Amino acid sequence: MKTYLECIPCFIRQSLEAARMATDDEAIHEEIIKDVMKYLQSISFSNSPPEISREVHNIIKIKSNSSDPYKKVKDQSNKMAENLYPRLKELIEESDDSLLMAIKLSIVGNVIDFGTSNRFNVEDMLDKAINQDFNDNAYPQFKESLTRAKTILYLADNTGEIFFDKPLLEELVKRNKKITYVIKANPIINDATIDDAKFAGIDKLAKILEGDKGQNKSTPGILLKYASNEFLDLFNSVDMVISKGQGNYESLNESSRKIFFLLMVKCPLVARDMGTELARLVLEVKE
Amino acid sequence: MKTYLECIPCFIRQSLEAARMATDDEAIHEEIIKDVMKYLQSISFSNSPPEISREVHNIIKIKSNSSDPYKKVKDQSNKMAENLYPRLKELIEESDDSLLMAIKLSIVGNVIDFGTSNRFNVEDMLDKAINQDFNDNAYPQFKESLTRAKTILYLADNTGEIFFDKPLLEELVKRNKKITYVIKANPIINDATIDDAKFAGIDKLAKILEGDKGQNKSTPGILLKYASNEFLDLFNSVDMVISKGQGNYESLNESSRKIFFLLMVKCPLVARDMGTELARLVLEVKE
Repeated sequence: MKTYLECIPCFIRQSLEAARMATDDEAIHEEIIKDVMKYLQSISFSNSPPEISREVHNIIKIKSNSSDPYKKVKDQSNKMAENLYPRLKELIEESDDSLLMAIKLSIVGNVIDFGTSNRFNVEDMLDKAINQDFNDNAYPQFKESLTRAKTILYLADNTGEIFFDKPLLEELVKRNKKITYVIKANPIINDATIDDAKFAGIDKLAKILEGDKGQNKSTPGILLKYASNEFLDLFNSVDMVISKGQGNYESLNESSRKIFFLLMVKCPLVARDMGTELARLVLEVKE
Repeated sequence: MKTYLECIPCFIRQSLEAARMATDDEAIHEEIIKDVMKYLQSISFSNSPPEISREVHNIIKIKSNSSDPYKKVKDQSNKMAENLYPRLKELIEESDDSLLMAIKLSIVGNVIDFGTSNRFNVEDMLDKAINQDFNDNAYPQFKESLTRAKTILYLADNTGEIFFDKPLLEELVKRNKKITYVIKANPIINDATIDDAKFAGIDKLAKILEGDKGQNKSTPGILLKYASNEFLDLFNSVDMVISKGQGNYESLNESSRKIFFLLMVKCPLVARDMGTELARLVLEVKE
């Protein structure tokens, strides 16, 4: 997905939020905002928002001398989600269709996002999720692909959200699927890294893989141009790709490979691109 | 009031909105956003937001070759408010305290504002206004000052809003006050100019004065450094100053002269500065 002019004030708002997380020094906040504006004057709007975000957050990290400005909120998200996990399991057990419920819960977890300006309450969303139907025939297609798939590449999104992925991963393991769970090599916004995946015990359900090359910068969404060789091999060879979140959608929605996108729509431009509304739980297949 | 880092994304969002009103040419939208970011890198945050806004909107006007990007929405606001005016007069007639009601209605008119990101519905606000009380003893002070005043300087804010000022101006005329009604010399955002004041028939109730010097640029809020000599003479000599809107508050809140500020709080930073909440009708005296 391309970057829109509306993304500019959003990048700056987010930079200020991140700068304040990284340091209390107001002079540095101002420097960061000015440097981010300087960078944003040079961008090509044909690049995707995650590609721009990669550089914006690199400026913040360097200027604030913080390798992980979102550390505190990420830890809070992990704890909040860990506490909710038993309730998620109950919802799965009580449901008529455990796979469908697991998909919905996985999407609800995608509300935990510090990369967008619209914020939603996870607990409010849980009730909404149970009652919301997906558009058209995405779920039947998901089931059909799943029946035939032996290998699955599952692209994670945010910290905390991982605990909401767990019931779906458990459903997949129950069906004897071989899963590779893709996280980011470096901290970027509140995206999950290997520590988060281990904290949530994902390593007992799937192989964990850093999706991007181990440089200093990661992108909040896996971009093929920065992807690790192991990721690219799997991306081109696995039977099924499940992609979580807006960042991965923005990075991969124009890919020629069939991908199941699972996300909460939190940005009006993503909503427009997908032909849907804000605050919708979306399961969409692109091929 | 000083400018905050939060104002930066707000200026850019507003610039994009104005650019799109001025032209359909997307290349010019992008140029405007980039030029505005370049300018914003150079600002001093000790200046007030209206001072920054003055330059930001000048960039938009020059780049888009439009002297008045908000012309269409201003005309719409004028018509909408003109149609509501008979209802305002009814509310005054039905009220126990016509002066208090006129003050409240004048403030409700301040929701018509394209300079802020929070937008409210005028008709919803009418009902709210009738039931909302002002904090502390601002209204008694207003009445007391009014009793003793012969001359009043009334600083207008936006188009459309002028029709909401009319009942208050009529209450003041009824009390034999000599009123000077201050508008902007040049179009700036949706602020009222002399044509709007005449369209609303304000010239039959008050003397109309351009508050700022007749250069090419106006400021969305009267700043003394750019004020006309006639304005400055009156500002220093009249018995009472009534100031409408956030822009005039941001420009004049640190003035040493006693001013009654009437506004709708639409910006979280103004709310914080005033110690109040968003969407409040505020009557506040500063001396």
